[in-house]
Amino acid sequence: MEQQPKMVTGWAARDANGLLSPFSYPLRAKGDEDVVVKILFCGICHSDLSTIKNEWGNAKYPVVPGHEIVGVVAEVGSSVARFAAGDTVGVGYIASTCRACANCRDGFENYCAGLVPSFNAALPDGATVHGGLAGLGGLGHLAVKFGKAFGVKVTVISTSPWKEAEAVERLGADAFLLSTNAEQMKAAAGTMDGIIDTVSAVHDLTPLITLLRTHGQLVPVGSPGKPVQLALYPLQSDGKSVAGSMIGGMRDTQEMVDFAVEHGVAAEVEVIGMEDVNGAMERLQKGDVRYRFVIDVANTMARAR
Amino acid sequence: MEQQPKMVTGWAARDANGLLSPFSYPLRAKGDEDVVVKILFCGICHSDLSTIKNEWGNAKYPVVPGHEIVGVVAEVGSSVARFAAGDTVGVGYIASTCRACANCRDGFENYCAGLVPSFNAALPDGATVHGGLAGLGGLGHLAVKFGKAFGVKVTVISTSPWKEAEAVERLGADAFLLSTNAEQMKAAAGTMDGIIDTVSAVHDLTPLITLLRTHGQLVPVGSPGKPVQLALYPLQSDGKSVAGSMIGGMRDTQEMVDFAVEHGVAAEVEVIGMEDVNGAMERLQKGDVRYRFVIDVANTMARAR
Repeated sequence: MEQQPKMVTGWAARDANGLLSPFSYPLRAKGDEDVVVKILFCGICHSDLSTIKNEWGNAKYPVVPGHEIVGVVAEVGSSVARFAAGDTVGVGYIASTCRACANCRDGFENYCAGLVPSFNAALPDGATVHGGLAGLGGLGHLAVKFGKAFGVKVTVISTSPWKEAEAVERLGADAFLLSTNAEQMKAAAGTMDGIIDTVSAVHDLTPLITLLRTHGQLVPVGSPGKPVQLALYPLQSDGKSVAGSMIGGMRDTQEMVDFAVEHGVAAEVEVIGMEDVNGAMERLQKGDVRYRFVIDVANTMARAR
Repeated sequence: MEQQPKMVTGWAARDANGLLSPFSYPLRAKGDEDVVVKILFCGICHSDLSTIKNEWGNAKYPVVPGHEIVGVVAEVGSSVARFAAGDTVGVGYIASTCRACANCRDGFENYCAGLVPSFNAALPDGATVHGGLAGLGGLGHLAVKFGKAFGVKVTVISTSPWKEAEAVERLGADAFLLSTNAEQMKAAAGTMDGIIDTVSAVHDLTPLITLLRTHGQLVPVGSPGKPVQLALYPLQSDGKSVAGSMIGGMRDTQEMVDFAVEHGVAAEVEVIGMEDVNGAMERLQKGDVRYRFVIDVANTMARAR
């Protein structure tokens, strides 16, 4: 007894100009392990922008972006015990993983070779934002808040002088470093245990490496489309490292959400309607957002059709 | 009562052509904490070659290279308790450090900001060669021997097919990977826990990063004069890192020497006379040495004058 698939509507980019418009597609039939989520809100990440404009060369149009989803469980499959209809849930970058490989068994589902990303839905998880200090954007402002909640000294490093007041007065950072100021950078050399680098553009890592103490770690979480320059000697002369990190596994992500709830760590967001998404993408490209656009999907999808 | 300083002879390069010839200079007056060493042997490292040819732009001519020294203690200062005349000793890259900073107190004298390098003497210490696998040169062949002594699986990665027999039959490596063979490289993707990269030339790190497992580390110990290209996404997608390392502290170095003695780990060397040093530098530049030139300083300095 075959059922007609249910049609749903997302907003998709059709080509590399990245313009989003309504797009109707059939919802996959619910499996035993599936949780059907009614999307309430969705954040906009720079990687959504990179994807719809095909900056990474892997866009499969039509692309429905969005992987920072909050929603409500509508239905659950017959094997699902952990969630029930009516639960508020989040969905991040991961749609599914194999759950059998060594990485999945160790709680690193994010590094599963069989990972299927979620291209049209996801929770503001910020799972890679654990540690110290960073540029002050969507990820960076959360890094500041998590850093303070962890009890570490947080310095915001930025090319924009006006972000100093934002960083220190609004977000509670301990210090601000203008990366274009050679004197400030020189004075801060060798003082930092770790740096989270959220810059999405191609840039030289050496000035950041210089800021690290012996054995310090630079964690780049932005993904420029082209390789960056790396001078090896500054890494070697003080035993420093450049450590990659991408989202988190289920265990780490849940721990992060629990920690955020306990310590009141929340993203500063600008809530927009679905019909404003193309303008928001333009503003994101220019860095004009404090600090994360979140689309009020449920309340505005009807209007936008 | 001032004493006339004792004159000693080393071999120095006068300019960036790097040619070495005898050079007479005054020995510093012995301090209370000094150990005067009569040099017996000295290894030649690629960093000696880079220094005398000013590839790193920091040569202060005349330069007397050599930092892999074995010798015999001739005299000790009044505060020296650990060494006595007649002891066989080694000297590495470090001549002195401050012994007061956090790095020195933690046994990481190699990262002391006040480190004074030893530019004319040193033991074949190989202190950075701890771990797994590498190109097959002066450091690489020791990495293979240490790796086997540690009980890990060792794969030698090289662009030279003829090194396969050397690596597997002579040095006991478990496997050989020809980095110019795309099929072999593809088959080995994601299989290695760590890679020690001993290449001194500018090269792309991405093919090596691709060989690592999730959370694997690439440790470059060669220092090209220019920055290398680093694609960030391959680091991020599997939580991998590029970790700098340079020589070792006193504790690590002593542990390394003790371990080498206990497990019979010894460098394969070609012993040359002092007068052969310029030819040896030329052969080193071409990679024509198995695996380390060691100068018989004591027996040949007289002849060379």
